[in-house]
Amino acid sequence: MMVVTNPPPELALFPALIQLPVQWGDQDAFGHVNNIVYFRWFESSRIAYLERIGLGGKQAGGLASVENVGPILAAIGCNYRRQIKYPDTVIVGARITRIGRSSMTMSHMVWSSTHQAVAADGESTVVVFDYAANQPKRVPDLYRALIEKLEGRKLEPA
Amino acid sequence: MMVVTNPPPELALFPALIQLPVQWGDQDAFGHVNNIVYFRWFESSRIAYLERIGLGGKQAGGLASVENVGPILAAIGCNYRRQIKYPDTVIVGARITRIGRSSMTMSHMVWSSTHQAVAADGESTVVVFDYAANQPKRVPDLYRALIEKLEGRKLEPA
Amino acid sequence: MMVVTNPPPELALFPALIQLPVQWGDQDAFGHVNNIVYFRWFESSRIAYLERIGLGGKQAGGLASVENVGPILAAIGCNYRRQIKYPDTVIVGARITRIGRSSMTMSHMVWSSTHQAVAADGESTVVVFDYAANQPKRVPDLYRALIEKLEGRKLEPA
Amino acid sequence: MMVVTNPPPELALFPALIQLPVQWGDQDAFGHVNNIVYFRWFESSRIAYLERIGLGGKQAGGLASVENVGPILAAIGCNYRRQIKYPDTVIVGARITRIGRSSMTMSHMVWSSTHQAVAADGESTVVVFDYAANQPKRVPDLYRALIEKLEGRKLEPA
Repeated sequence: MMVVTNPPPELALFPALIQLPVQWGDQDAFGHVNNIVYFRWFESSRIAYLERIGLGGKQAGGLASVENVGPILAAIGCNYRRQIKYPDTVIVGARITRIGRSSMTMSHMVWSSTHQAVAADGESTVVVFDYAANQPKRVPDLYRALIEKLEGRKLEPA
Repeated sequence: MMVVTNPPPELALFPALIQLPVQWGDQDAFGHVNNIVYFRWFESSRIAYLERIGLGGKQAGGLASVENVGPILAAIGCNYRRQIKYPDTVIVGARITRIGRSSMTMSHMVWSSTHQAVAADGESTVVVFDYAANQPKRVPDLYRALIEKLEGRKLEPA
Repeated sequence: MMVVTNPPPELALFPALIQLPVQWGDQDAFGHVNNIVYFRWFESSRIAYLERIGLGGKQAGGLASVENVGPILAAIGCNYRRQIKYPDTVIVGARITRIGRSSMTMSHMVWSSTHQAVAADGESTVVVFDYAANQPKRVPDLYRALIEKLEGRKLEPA
Repeated sequence: MMVVTNPPPELALFPALIQLPVQWGDQDAFGHVNNIVYFRWFESSRIAYLERIGLGGKQAGGLASVENVGPILAAIGCNYRRQIKYPDTVIVGARITRIGRSSMTMSHMVWSSTHQAVAADGESTVVVFDYAANQPKRVPDLYRALIEKLEGRKLEPA
């Protein structure tokens, strides 16, 4: 992924940033980027975030290789603020805003170079899952420490 | 789209139902259906719903041909309940649960034949947009009447 | 996948047939099904074919679980005959027309219910690969026998 | 799209080059980039090429706005040379190698930064189509001139 230098101020709080060109084929019959493409971008920023904290197993796309424990996407949502069309380049940010007992809340933001404005934002719930026990697991202290270090602040359990 | 006969009871309240085979390529490197595919299914059920009320312009995918007014997807979210793998066949339902001044809330549900259970549900906010005036527009009485007829009940403004 | 009954005569020679609804979101900004979607359909028919000969490992999507040997897609092409738009239902067929030393040629055909005609056809080259030795491998006699049984004819090495 | 500086020698003959990051979600259940993604990359390079010769209507993605004449993708194929996995960055090139009476042949090449090698190549046939007359049309002299200027050589009719 491209290193994002000089990110726009709207993305100042997002420690994981990726930059992606809009492809012509991302557009649907309405002539703008289809609504599902934003979730592909969110996903890419989520992976980038996990890599930033050293938990982004290439194969698994995440935490899976650590202690047979991995993240599961439990829920995700997107608010569409502006239509994006080809050509454009988006900067997509991810940050973690909450660490609960066994889940975390990640915020996403899509910034459009053409609009010079936020085009979408959203939120996902990632659950730490113990694949051996087949049930959610308490967020390991290691994860919390790595995340708080990257975020630069304490994240109180909520 | 396939006509869905004998839908499962979980989908009893959904007037628009579509049936889709899971394709092998819908799966990602985790070996299950990728999270963005569910939004493609939601979209297909949204279009099917609009067609059921006679507002599903083929080209526009929606209400757009009526009075230069069309729906815009303002927000959408999904809760993932069970992992879906190939092979499977999903039944996807859409219903409208709220009609506000210029927006409507649509509920979505994905039912897995393999699991014989709900695999995901979600909600979207659809705004009626006046493209000429470039602003949201009050939900036309015609839409409300068509939707309430299909839903079989009054939908109070919320 | 749906069982295809009464396939059109154009597909008479294709032992593996699948039926798929066109989704609205398969369309691009030209308002017709995007060119890459046909390759997704080809892929689904390829998997269906492998399942018909008992070599369609669900996880691997193919022959991979047999003897640490698996198919690799070496090349694929598509000829676009007619534009497909939503709504439509396509029937996609796959057949094997040649078995070489370490590769096979598979033919694909996409038939449009709306057009009542062939919308696309194509061909792919599948190589049998020995993952342990990291090189192509002679097509196992077992594969040849299973394929010839399904095709109902001898396939001379070419 | 990113400007590609210092392209690898394998892409020296390709006047239109784009650079794209591989997204994690481009991978399928085999854990490598799915075969259809290459055709999305080919498409993006095709659009980039048309833009280079001044015929890349943003909305239409091509020549369509000129004289009610537009390109239709008649055929496309891909040879897979090396598996691509996330993370990687690909450089994708497009060039026109033949101009016939009403069709052109475009070559595509995908170069992987991780492999430092060509990962795929392919070819497409683009037909100039007269939408009013509903039939193929002779390649306009303007197109030929623009293409030959970009390619830096004469392209004999074939």
